[in-house]
Amino acid sequence: MTGAVDTALVRDLTDDEARAALVCKWGEVEADVLPAWVAEMDYAVAEPITAALHRAVDAGMTSYPRPGGGGPLGAAYAGFAARQFGHDVDPERVVPTVDVTAGVRLALDVAAGPGALVMPVPGYSPQLAMAAITGRERRDLVVHPDDERAELDLDQLDHHFANGARALLLTQPHNPWGRVFTRAELEGVRDVVLRHGGFVVSDEIHAPLVLDGREHVPYLAVEGTAEHAVAVVAASKAFNVAGLKCAQLVTASDRLHEALVSAPMARNDSWSVLGVEASVAAYTEGDAWLDALRARLTAQRDLLVTLLAEHLPLARMRPVEATYLAWIDLRAYGHDDPAAVALARQRVRLAPGHDYQPGLTGHVRLNFATSPERLAEVVRRLASAVAPRAT
Amino acid sequence: MTGAVDTALVRDLTDDEARAALVCKWGEVEADVLPAWVAEMDYAVAEPITAALHRAVDAGMTSYPRPGGGGPLGAAYAGFAARQFGHDVDPERVVPTVDVTAGVRLALDVAAGPGALVMPVPGYSPQLAMAAITGRERRDLVVHPDDERAELDLDQLDHHFANGARALLLTQPHNPWGRVFTRAELEGVRDVVLRHGGFVVSDEIHAPLVLDGREHVPYLAVEGTAEHAVAVVAASKAFNVAGLKCAQLVTASDRLHEALVSAPMARNDSWSVLGVEASVAAYTEGDAWLDALRARLTAQRDLLVTLLAEHLPLARMRPVEATYLAWIDLRAYGHDDPAAVALARQRVRLAPGHDYQPGLTGHVRLNFATSPERLAEVVRRLASAVAPRAT
Repeated sequence: MTGAVDTALVRDLTDDEARAALVCKWGEVEADVLPAWVAEMDYAVAEPITAALHRAVDAGMTSYPRPGGGGPLGAAYAGFAARQFGHDVDPERVVPTVDVTAGVRLALDVAAGPGALVMPVPGYSPQLAMAAITGRERRDLVVHPDDERAELDLDQLDHHFANGARALLLTQPHNPWGRVFTRAELEGVRDVVLRHGGFVVSDEIHAPLVLDGREHVPYLAVEGTAEHAVAVVAASKAFNVAGLKCAQLVTASDRLHEALVSAPMARNDSWSVLGVEASVAAYTEGDAWLDALRARLTAQRDLLVTLLAEHLPLARMRPVEATYLAWIDLRAYGHDDPAAVALARQRVRLAPGHDYQPGLTGHVRLNFATSPERLAEVVRRLASAVAPRAT
Repeated sequence: MTGAVDTALVRDLTDDEARAALVCKWGEVEADVLPAWVAEMDYAVAEPITAALHRAVDAGMTSYPRPGGGGPLGAAYAGFAARQFGHDVDPERVVPTVDVTAGVRLALDVAAGPGALVMPVPGYSPQLAMAAITGRERRDLVVHPDDERAELDLDQLDHHFANGARALLLTQPHNPWGRVFTRAELEGVRDVVLRHGGFVVSDEIHAPLVLDGREHVPYLAVEGTAEHAVAVVAASKAFNVAGLKCAQLVTASDRLHEALVSAPMARNDSWSVLGVEASVAAYTEGDAWLDALRARLTAQRDLLVTLLAEHLPLARMRPVEATYLAWIDLRAYGHDDPAAVALARQRVRLAPGHDYQPGLTGHVRLNFATSPERLAEVVRRLASAVAPRAT
């Protein structure tokens, strides 16, 4: 974060490049559809990562990765956490796993103990199934659409823990809330969890993507959390390498580390050797690119605010403090499923709000990690679709 | 399999190359240890795969892969299955998953129904935990070390199914038995399974590695299996790309296909985009390399027979009909754990038999997918370690 930011490091993909690179985001929509749905960025991968991948392929690294924690990946993440978050991580307690959702599942299966799972909602859609998959009931911690600010309701959390919940799936920074939880908020969570002997799995995949120079506080950096929390981190979201399949589990206690590394191989040996190489490159050589990215995303977020004010003045959006995913309340425009309306009428694909909170109407999640021109077109199309008279 | 085999397509890695490429097999042993343990080959990756990976990296393909079944991967595997096994696979019913063991887990979780799991033993060690991971009891179908031939005991299988077993984890060709099951044997399995309304997950990861021109019969190619079986296949073992993380689930019924593709994303969205690219290249452009590989592995297997006769005349090894993994009975030499003895005394690492059958003594699994010179040295060291007076 020191020195001048070289914003030119973030290069926009052309449409043709994006279609070739992003086979899900751009490949799963028809050619005339502008994609602003799944959480991937329309930017070229950072050069140190591409170079590391070419080197690995030239070396024939297609085989099983190094097993266990620590190693070059552990050292790389520990260095990154120290520089980016001021967080002291033991490199030996950094354990690879294939992706963040698989890591959450593993932590719940082998470290959390039995009991219901508390899930902040709206929440990352694939993880809404996590309770059922791990054989638990789900207890929702809901932010109401009318709430001014998206906050973790500690009274409700306390109530859930008092009534059979065992674990909290914390997502921080939060997708799709866009919140960076403060240290005080996290201390509040910790106090409730400690009171009930609960457990926290902290999904921090968006940690590097804090905007406006905000501070990400790792949950394990909050005093008194070491014995009840596993963090799941990755380079995947910040560096656009989710398809390379390597996330990391971080612990701060011997007991929890041991629980993770002594899990049967069949529960956790699916991470990719190329994902390891990409992650090491991102964590050790990616800071300048990440600075440029945060500057770009902050500008894109500001542009989105301006565009919404102009084209969709009745849209409500809480401050986006992190991520490149805007949670937008379009209820004022009267459509149950504005994402479907936008796709059908104006060929722009957003993520429907009900994916993140079943039954919720009138909301979309909009991915603004693209060029300013495309973002303007996304909002223009969305406005034409859901508020045709206003445009 | 037509035309002359260009054996030069299979290139031996030097020790330095192997240490750089095979970060588990060669990286997890000390520099003076000769590795013949984990199932990876000391050969350079086929050129079409390396080229596909470089192209994908140049295109920036680091993002989420295409979701769902079919597509280029489905077409590629269907073509491969038709050419290699004479098996007619519906490309749409080829569904990606991260690796074979994860695919087995998924099939058991979403398609098999509840009940105990029958496991042929000795069996692939990580999969010995599969019953427990999927919340089942394990019922072993044991081949006794003194059995002349490694066969599936159908009476015992019938007994297990009659007493609460629901599913069979079939591994075919079998690791570590080295068996290619005949169509008649598979029909026998089918008859028992049908009698009890049971289920089969058929791990066919070694299918391309049949030796001596033998025929691999996919379980789903046996009449009457479509409604009770999921096959799990991959390019990973035959093409040495296990670290790229893409296997495939194959079904032959709408019902089972639907069960797999309707599983929550959090159960199955971890395969790698580069694994897809590598698999497509292997399946569409890999036949000549595979022909060369089978010729090489057949020669290595023959060399191993000769070396054992010379250096370890009391070793017993059943015919190795497939794979590059030899299951060797060294009980005559009197060591409970000959792999440990070999590592300690002669710095050669084999896989201990008790990994594949807990409690079993006197056995090792030896990986012969290396150069003739290294294989000779592996056997020489093993013999010096376990039978020093005989050398």
